[in-house]
Amino acid sequence: MVTVQEAEAIIRAQTRDFGIEELPFEQALRRVLAEDLKTDRDLPPFNRVAMDGIAVKYEAIAQGTQRFKIVGTQAAGGAPLEVQQLQDCIEIMTGAALPPSVDTVIRYEDLEIQNGIATVLTENVHAGQNLHRQGQDKKQGEVVVAAAQVVTPAVVSMAAAVGETQLRVKKLPKVVVISTGDELVDVEQTPLPYQIRRSNSYMVKAALQQFQIKADMLHLPDDIAATREELRQCLQQYEVVILSGGISAGKFDFVPQVLEELVVQKRFHKVQQKPGKPFWFGTYGQQTVVFALPGNPVSTFLCLHRYCLPWLHASLGLPEKPKLFASLAQDISFKPQLCYFVQVQLHFNEQGQLLATPFEGNGSGDFANLIEADAFLELPPEQSEYNKGEVYRVWPMKSLL
Amino acid sequence: MVTVQEAEAIIRAQTRDFGIEELPFEQALRRVLAEDLKTDRDLPPFNRVAMDGIAVKYEAIAQGTQRFKIVGTQAAGGAPLEVQQLQDCIEIMTGAALPPSVDTVIRYEDLEIQNGIATVLTENVHAGQNLHRQGQDKKQGEVVVAAAQVVTPAVVSMAAAVGETQLRVKKLPKVVVISTGDELVDVEQTPLPYQIRRSNSYMVKAALQQFQIKADMLHLPDDIAATREELRQCLQQYEVVILSGGISAGKFDFVPQVLEELVVQKRFHKVQQKPGKPFWFGTYGQQTVVFALPGNPVSTFLCLHRYCLPWLHASLGLPEKPKLFASLAQDISFKPQLCYFVQVQLHFNEQGQLLATPFEGNGSGDFANLIEADAFLELPPEQSEYNKGEVYRVWPMKSLL
Repeated sequence: MVTVQEAEAIIRAQTRDFGIEELPFEQALRRVLAEDLKTDRDLPPFNRVAMDGIAVKYEAIAQGTQRFKIVGTQAAGGAPLEVQQLQDCIEIMTGAALPPSVDTVIRYEDLEIQNGIATVLTENVHAGQNLHRQGQDKKQGEVVVAAAQVVTPAVVSMAAAVGETQLRVKKLPKVVVISTGDELVDVEQTPLPYQIRRSNSYMVKAALQQFQIKADMLHLPDDIAATREELRQCLQQYEVVILSGGISAGKFDFVPQVLEELVVQKRFHKVQQKPGKPFWFGTYGQQTVVFALPGNPVSTFLCLHRYCLPWLHASLGLPEKPKLFASLAQDISFKPQLCYFVQVQLHFNEQGQLLATPFEGNGSGDFANLIEADAFLELPPEQSEYNKGEVYRVWPMKSLL
Repeated sequence: MVTVQEAEAIIRAQTRDFGIEELPFEQALRRVLAEDLKTDRDLPPFNRVAMDGIAVKYEAIAQGTQRFKIVGTQAAGGAPLEVQQLQDCIEIMTGAALPPSVDTVIRYEDLEIQNGIATVLTENVHAGQNLHRQGQDKKQGEVVVAAAQVVTPAVVSMAAAVGETQLRVKKLPKVVVISTGDELVDVEQTPLPYQIRRSNSYMVKAALQQFQIKADMLHLPDDIAATREELRQCLQQYEVVILSGGISAGKFDFVPQVLEELVVQKRFHKVQQKPGKPFWFGTYGQQTVVFALPGNPVSTFLCLHRYCLPWLHASLGLPEKPKLFASLAQDISFKPQLCYFVQVQLHFNEQGQLLATPFEGNGSGDFANLIEADAFLELPPEQSEYNKGEVYRVWPMKSLL
């Protein structure tokens, strides 16, 4: 039996690299960027007019000129016009490229315009005002989006701005999610009184979609020969095998035995934690990683969030997430010498502090709480009393922000 | 000009209901559930064995029996066996339905089994132990997932467990995202020196995907007749029209004028905020809501997160999100009598408190900061100095947890 920290380190040592593929930028949302995006031009690419108004030579202002003759109108996207005389100006719109012959923009609010003459109503004009200077945000060739981050809407839009219509992103692993056990029937079926419907594998599959992974699903009956044959094929076809159930002390829990027969190297079996103690983890050559999670729905879900998703996150090349802490909103007592993962609801108080309220309840078996749980708190095994106001590490299971 | 709070209230008064549709449960992930899900059976549906071991009549234990004859093995999913004699037991597995003739489970760790006889090694056996009782989590017909919440992986799995293969979810609105302005060229094109590529509408479209909305896109040139004709059609075809650009004081900013000609009722134009002051909002009959956002990318994105996405959230029937607050990590000064939306990076300290670090920078124009910004802080207009340690409302733009 390993500790939670040992299990984490063993798994972390087995990250994999699934390679890189190219996608149209619009399809890359939520994928992991595998290249730096650079600007093809300065950002902004020209001295960008930041207010609607007129563009003048500041020299004229410095000399006391207040009335300017409008010699033309330049829209955003229009080719730059030219000003010949000091007392001439261009009516110019936000987003336009400032023509080289002028240097200062005076906004409409500070002007009166009549019969093609703009009169400046303020004394307060600075050289070069109301401009967003070429290259002020980024210079041509500078990195605007660094590799190894998730493609967000802002990244999609930056890719559009710099003309990167194809993005190199991390390939996703081929994943199979396997349920086990003769007590499980199809979702469409009405179970016999002593059967239940399959549900864990749907949960795992849905959770993997946050990475855009579309996992296959498979069910194994309590039949050692069938289990052996199916797992043999899965180890060839998939890079990640996630099992739920079949790893405890029961007579039909032959998943560990079969995996070892198939030369999957056991990295650990059993973790000092509740729920999820029977968790088994192994690797098959350099190719396939096997997470065999306990079959209880809460155990499956917590192990998925505590171990599998962070492993995927790391394998896709994302930097480690900052550790998150929350303050316990009520006392908890937990005697066993195990790390206790307790389901909680999270909220922020008005001081911006994250509070975690645990569910009263039926322990690891209470599947119904998972609907309302936002996260689980990781309570270390050295203690048995955990007091209100103490701060512990928290693992979110849904987005709270 | 309205305040931020007035703008918010006016928009909130215009929520819409887009109806309900039915989807296979696996396709309902991230949609909004429009019905309560109830259990078709108790949860658990039977007295569920919680440990691998033997099942006995407690009466035998009470009478001092320590050795039990194993009369059969019952796997999870197996039909319940029967025990006739007090000193008989069933070898039984986690997940099995406890047969009516027994009432107590003793785990393998507390047994020695030899030649079909199980000897109990502990004095410490309680009546009814190691069982997860029928209906302990939920009774048949009880609500397990309430309507008006987002379908998470846990909800998908609960739907599977209770056999709800079709889910009634909120319909999504038909949305068009419209960019405006002759300075914008297609992403595939190389812009002329005074042009830029379209990017805002990709950002808006991508951000809407968090609701699973697939928006259409449209570009309008600086041509009043074309703008009128296209907008006329959009008002008929779409329930939500999101424009970016064309609403300021410029000569080609005729979006507000055209919308009013098309009998879109202006609800407000201009908000006391920076960036995003020119924001225009209106409604077309009961059918269509029009958000005309400023064209600057940062303004577009902030207005989207501050106004449009919360409106969608409410229109889809989701309860209001709890307000989120963060502590300012450094002093900021902002003089204008406007609400200041400042882009920040968020992190939690080890006390579980959310800290917001503002970007130094170029103000609303700095599109490049959007890549790294996690959120924006809403700084009220009554102040001009905002000090480190003070707590302000924060609007996340990406998931931090």
